[in-house]
Amino acid sequence: MERAVRHFQEELEALQARLLEMGGLAEERVRAAVNGLVSRDTALIDKVMRGDEPVNELHIEIDNRCFTLLALYQPMATDLRSIVAAVKINTDLERVGDLAVNIAEAARRYTNHPPVKKLVDIPQMGDLAQAMLRDALDSFVRRDTKLAHQVLNEDDRLDGLKTQVFRELLTYMLDDPITVEPALDLILVSRHLERIGDHATNIAEDVIFMVSARDVRHHPPGESGR
Amino acid sequence: MERAVRHFQEELEALQARLLEMGGLAEERVRAAVNGLVSRDTALIDKVMRGDEPVNELHIEIDNRCFTLLALYQPMATDLRSIVAAVKINTDLERVGDLAVNIAEAARRYTNHPPVKKLVDIPQMGDLAQAMLRDALDSFVRRDTKLAHQVLNEDDRLDGLKTQVFRELLTYMLDDPITVEPALDLILVSRHLERIGDHATNIAEDVIFMVSARDVRHHPPGESGR
Repeated sequence: MERAVRHFQEELEALQARLLEMGGLAEERVRAAVNGLVSRDTALIDKVMRGDEPVNELHIEIDNRCFTLLALYQPMATDLRSIVAAVKINTDLERVGDLAVNIAEAARRYTNHPPVKKLVDIPQMGDLAQAMLRDALDSFVRRDTKLAHQVLNEDDRLDGLKTQVFRELLTYMLDDPITVEPALDLILVSRHLERIGDHATNIAEDVIFMVSARDVRHHPPGESGR
Repeated sequence: MERAVRHFQEELEALQARLLEMGGLAEERVRAAVNGLVSRDTALIDKVMRGDEPVNELHIEIDNRCFTLLALYQPMATDLRSIVAAVKINTDLERVGDLAVNIAEAARRYTNHPPVKKLVDIPQMGDLAQAMLRDALDSFVRRDTKLAHQVLNEDDRLDGLKTQVFRELLTYMLDDPITVEPALDLILVSRHLERIGDHATNIAEDVIFMVSARDVRHHPPGESGR
């Protein structure tokens, strides 16, 4: 039995390592998409648009790992919550990968127009969204609810930046119709980045639930949370 | 043991009933938000903006039910996949509830401006997104992969409508700056509706995986899928 427990812990660590790898990959793709937009680098943008496969493969692999752990070890309490959290986090990271593609698509259209303005807030939003994602995953691995709460706070900053981007671009659009189409794509990019922040927030909330949930309602007497 | 099995099946049915209830609630809120937009009914819009609580409460209750089922019955194979699918579907439905609020927020801003145009495609998108959601949940309850595949196809229609809405509104914005701000909100509404379709698609994909997955890799010998 002790050997089974140790094996479970090893599998759980392997699962976390894969989630971190997927997080790193997703984050890297967001960075590349935003960099492609800022530097109008169509080769980089095209690379992001085509390169979704590794994230999708990891998504399936991690899902399978979660099922295997649930089926083989039938974990209870904290371990059970960790794996269900991993299932959810995996879904969030896959969507972040999709959003990197969406950003790249908007960036691709944007490069067909003269630039509306020097991009300042959008790269800042990109940095913030990436940092939130990193912190959310760190909070999962370290079971660090303080860091998870910090992610929730950072989301307000990201929302503030999104509103600022929107207002600024709106004035451009009202002043000069030629900016309408490219400005729309910048607004979309800012919303994709905001959604990446939402996914980081989801992950942070899962971590808080995972660590602090007192019980699974009606769980068998004698089985106490760790 | 047979009694435990029967009890598990009853619990699983109760879980599905709650998921359907949540789906109905989320769908109803989407309908109210779109109706509020079309009829410029600020009272209805405000009701959607304030009324997120029941969906959020169901979200927590369903999550708890899933954990309880996993912890108490330690289900295998198809049953395990059903519950993990329920966890994911629950998350998708909660986001649909959030998106109803987002639609209501955009509708509220829209009513502060003169109408840009008679709304035709957006209510159609709303109907389609709601139908997809309903079909996706039906496909879950009936384990009907044919219906689930149909949902995936409907998503293309929704995407087509979104593109059509965007193009039409773009011409308004280019012609008359006074339409820029309200047209932007209509574009946002169409994207929120598209995302509701994405959530229906996620649910349909979960159903297909749940029903057709041949095995959980490495699951114990002798434990065959049903």
